[in-house]
Amino acid sequence: MAGKSIFGTDEAEVIRIHFNDEVTAFSGIKRASIKDKGICNRCISAIAFRALEEAGIPTHFISESGDRDMLCRKVEPLPIQVIVRNRISGTTAKMLGVENGMRIPNTIMELSYRRKELGKPMINDHHAVALSLATYDELKTMYDVASKANEVLRELFHKAGIELVDIKLRFGKTAGGDVIIADEISPDNCRLWDEKDGRVLDKDRFRHDMSDVTASYREVMDRLIKSNAK
Amino acid sequence: MAGKSIFGTDEAEVIRIHFNDEVTAFSGIKRASIKDKGICNRCISAIAFRALEEAGIPTHFISESGDRDMLCRKVEPLPIQVIVRNRISGTTAKMLGVENGMRIPNTIMELSYRRKELGKPMINDHHAVALSLATYDELKTMYDVASKANEVLRELFHKAGIELVDIKLRFGKTAGGDVIIADEISPDNCRLWDEKDGRVLDKDRFRHDMSDVTASYREVMDRLIKSNAK
Repeated sequence: MAGKSIFGTDEAEVIRIHFNDEVTAFSGIKRASIKDKGICNRCISAIAFRALEEAGIPTHFISESGDRDMLCRKVEPLPIQVIVRNRISGTTAKMLGVENGMRIPNTIMELSYRRKELGKPMINDHHAVALSLATYDELKTMYDVASKANEVLRELFHKAGIELVDIKLRFGKTAGGDVIIADEISPDNCRLWDEKDGRVLDKDRFRHDMSDVTASYREVMDRLIKSNAK
Repeated sequence: MAGKSIFGTDEAEVIRIHFNDEVTAFSGIKRASIKDKGICNRCISAIAFRALEEAGIPTHFISESGDRDMLCRKVEPLPIQVIVRNRISGTTAKMLGVENGMRIPNTIMELSYRRKELGKPMINDHHAVALSLATYDELKTMYDVASKANEVLRELFHKAGIELVDIKLRFGKTAGGDVIIADEISPDNCRLWDEKDGRVLDKDRFRHDMSDVTASYREVMDRLIKSNAK
């Protein structure tokens, strides 16, 4: 997994996630290193996970460790992920034949099947159940959690003057069978646009060869730290 | 529209659909003519629509007219369609990385956006609502109708020893705002397999250059007529 490495700890139910500076896009075809990305993404993730936990949304986050690591609950990763969209952007805009960044009256939730060799296709609830990837009840839980998390994170980024355009949420199942938010929350799995001038502050800068990639990750971190300290 | 032509009638609310022998596949890339297909599809459609109407499922069907035409209620075609799958077959099997014809414990419903230039992509309810293609309530009606229609048609084909593997249902909205089943029900929009030997009896024979294309359409018609007369 580019961008992060996972290690065991002395406690069987706790893992350590190390954030490095590697970045990939287009299913791994484009690769590079973004200076200090790991520090920024670990910091942004920690702030975001804390905000979710404070709102009563369970996540795998336990605590920070150094400036590139975080301790997390060990979970069984689910083979599906939920993308929450507050605008239509990227490949979905192309698929639907609409302009990039189209505003929408509702919130879009998309399910995708995390099999890289299949190109992580968008699927629906019935496909997931047919393939025993989740039950209808588990899917409902995932959508409920994703919807609440989206509201909390929109507000968190909004306080920093940043619009959460979309977010890809990964989930894990605890030993007790609970489905909780896992992975990271960062410019690598969120689209983040400056609320004033629409400047892209996320991995799209890397995907589309825009300038100031490192600076944009750092800007998101700095603005979140500042607005969160208020 | 290959396969059918639509004409007005003396009555403003009634159209005449003429079934010809043209067939296309792969978004119109493959084209041909299948002898007497129009007669078979009109006949199969009329039997299927009658079965749906008898089960209380509203459709656009009014009556047969000659051996290639049917009179139907005029409706506003919806820009989305529902594919109901009783097994996973075709491009969906490829997308999900499973064997063609995989048996499933549930029924899969897929929504697709009927824009040919976009390749009629699979979408979900949220996309449809975001683009004002339907409301959540209309979608629920479509799925309810599709589910009931699938059960009625499975039984209809089963009585003829044919398995309904999947079906693509198109919908139209009446002047009164009701969402009803439109278009056709035939080997052109259903996957139909012989229950005993698994023989393909639908448009896949044309798609994949199999023999006896004309004979298979005729066989479906003949078996339906025979089992339906009992």
